Amino acid sequence: MKKLINAPETVVADALAGLAAAHPDLVSVDTANKVVTRAGGAVAGKVGLVSGGGSGHEPLHGGYVGYGMLDAACAGEVFTSPVPGQVHAATKAVSGGAGVLHIIKNYTGDVLNFRMAAEDAADDGIETAEVVVNDDVAVQDSLYTAGRRGVGATVFVEKIAGALAERGAPLGEVARVAREVNERSRSFGVALTSCTVPAAGQPTFDLADDEIELGIGIHGEPGRTRAPLAPAREIVETALDAIAADQPLAGDLLVMVNGMGGTPLMDLYGAFGAVSASIARRGARIARNLVGNYITSLEMQGFSVTVCQLTDELTQLWDAPVQTAGLRWGR
Amino acid sequence: MKKLINAPETVVADALAGLAAAHPDLVSVDTANKVVTRAGGAVAGKVGLVSGGGSGHEPLHGGYVGYGMLDAACAGEVFTSPVPGQVHAATKAVSGGAGVLHIIKNYTGDVLNFRMAAEDAADDGIETAEVVVNDDVAVQDSLYTAGRRGVGATVFVEKIAGALAERGAPLGEVARVAREVNERSRSFGVALTSCTVPAAGQPTFDLADDEIELGIGIHGEPGRTRAPLAPAREIVETALDAIAADQPLAGDLLVMVNGMGGTPLMDLYGAFGAVSASIARRGARIARNLVGNYITSLEMQGFSVTVCQLTDELTQLWDAPVQTAGLRWGR
Repeated sequence: MKKLINAPETVVADALAGLAAAHPDLVSVDTANKVVTRAGGAVAGKVGLVSGGGSGHEPLHGGYVGYGMLDAACAGEVFTSPVPGQVHAATKAVSGGAGVLHIIKNYTGDVLNFRMAAEDAADDGIETAEVVVNDDVAVQDSLYTAGRRGVGATVFVEKIAGALAERGAPLGEVARVAREVNERSRSFGVALTSCTVPAAGQPTFDLADDEIELGIGIHGEPGRTRAPLAPAREIVETALDAIAADQPLAGDLLVMVNGMGGTPLMDLYGAFGAVSASIARRGARIARNLVGNYITSLEMQGFSVTVCQLTDELTQLWDAPVQTAGLRWGR
Repeated sequence: MKKLINAPETVVADALAGLAAAHPDLVSVDTANKVVTRAGGAVAGKVGLVSGGGSGHEPLHGGYVGYGMLDAACAGEVFTSPVPGQVHAATKAVSGGAGVLHIIKNYTGDVLNFRMAAEDAADDGIETAEVVVNDDVAVQDSLYTAGRRGVGATVFVEKIAGALAERGAPLGEVARVAREVNERSRSFGVALTSCTVPAAGQPTFDLADDEIELGIGIHGEPGRTRAPLAPAREIVETALDAIAADQPLAGDLLVMVNGMGGTPLMDLYGAFGAVSASIARRGARIARNLVGNYITSLEMQGFSVTVCQLTDELTQLWDAPVQTAGLRWGR
């Protein structure tokens, strides 16, 4: 295993220390609990937003802590759910008296552990609500999931719900918009290569030199099928067909072309060009977009497409200022 | 070769089409010349900034076109200098009557071709000045370079000179600050893996499974030496020692920990933590930083460290608003 790390046991702690050192204006890190919180702590009267999950998907989630997005992120071990104690600590840390929203990617361990933490928070008198993100159209159930996996839409949910919370909306409203974003979003991912979890020391799966995996999950879980390598525009078409079969590609869309961590940005822009042309042919419009590494799988090569059907409200919230390590604009 | 592309011959055009589709508010693309220009074209009375070089280093340079940074970027073929005609077209396109600064990474072909374009621009009555960036301390001469290579400091030069040009400073002043940033900056890069140029179809070089290349260039040019894989903190120490041997690590620093394209962001943050701790031990202070993929080598795994000794002026210009695909803050 050839990695730029100190040791497999310290990768999460080392990454959090680096995040804290790089962005003291945005975040602070509770080292004991491996929780990233917004610099300055809980905001009185504001709904707190907590997310988290296995590490290895950076900038998700720690890179989305800051003004206009998350209040805290819980970092599990690589590709491993955070434990309830982490989520409980994060929930307490960001509670400003208006309740806390848990944004959970739909993996069995994540859902269980966030719900246990919600019970513990209730014992502390903290009201919580949850949104379970499940936007991946590739497979119905998978290795770590009952129902659909939660992937790229998580970035949209965190940004849009974060903007509404920043405006002072109550917990029920913030939870409603978070669920609406999830319901309006669909994703499909493709892997060209595997990735290596540091503690495992070897690639999660094998792919032949001329083979890709269609419908891959963000932990290398199997997708729908393996297929021969094809031109990018054909792979993009397969991904968009899978999404369109589940929800029409119509109206104004927010579209993310996301790199899995090891894909050249040059190629992600090439793929976005293909996505853009295809969506235009299908009669829809890309009103907003992201192109880059936003929810990754370590050094995996590949990409995912996430599409959200926008409304005026969602567009306004998407455009609202955000100041995080991973997303930053306006203010 | 397993890549997310349509065909080796179209990778640059496809990436530029995607960049244009993603950021119509920021840039437009001259498809014939493969030149990315700022949306809205030349700004009357403002010094124009033109950079460019081989493709495959994205977001450099096209991702740095926009308010507060470049006016145009010329995209050569992958790892290949842009031709004089491209640079000439870009220079004309952004000339607002106050002259044009050429920001050139020190590679023999780039320098020659920018200078030929400068002569052609002079024939058109456009005044130009140039800064040749040569911050890489690893080797004195290399495969494509007489003298030091230009690498990470290019990002700093483009940002800081761009901010000064935006304030309406004259060409001589913008060129002066660009050269000052270069003179105050040093870089050192490390590769864990090679990368594959699409037109070549096979890795640029081979590295054994337990071996890294210290002092690598951004095209996979040989560095100083090959060494066994070591913990990240030791690799970081080697890089900082090389930089410190050339320019003291003292005072307030702008530090970039840059990914080569295929390195997990998690590991880049881990490396930044090590850089941060080491620089503190050496008695200097990281006043500003960047962590992420800013000047890449396709899907190469590895990283580089770039350090710039700040002054009050440079810090203010660094903090000035910027709106590009690759760097974006404040306004």
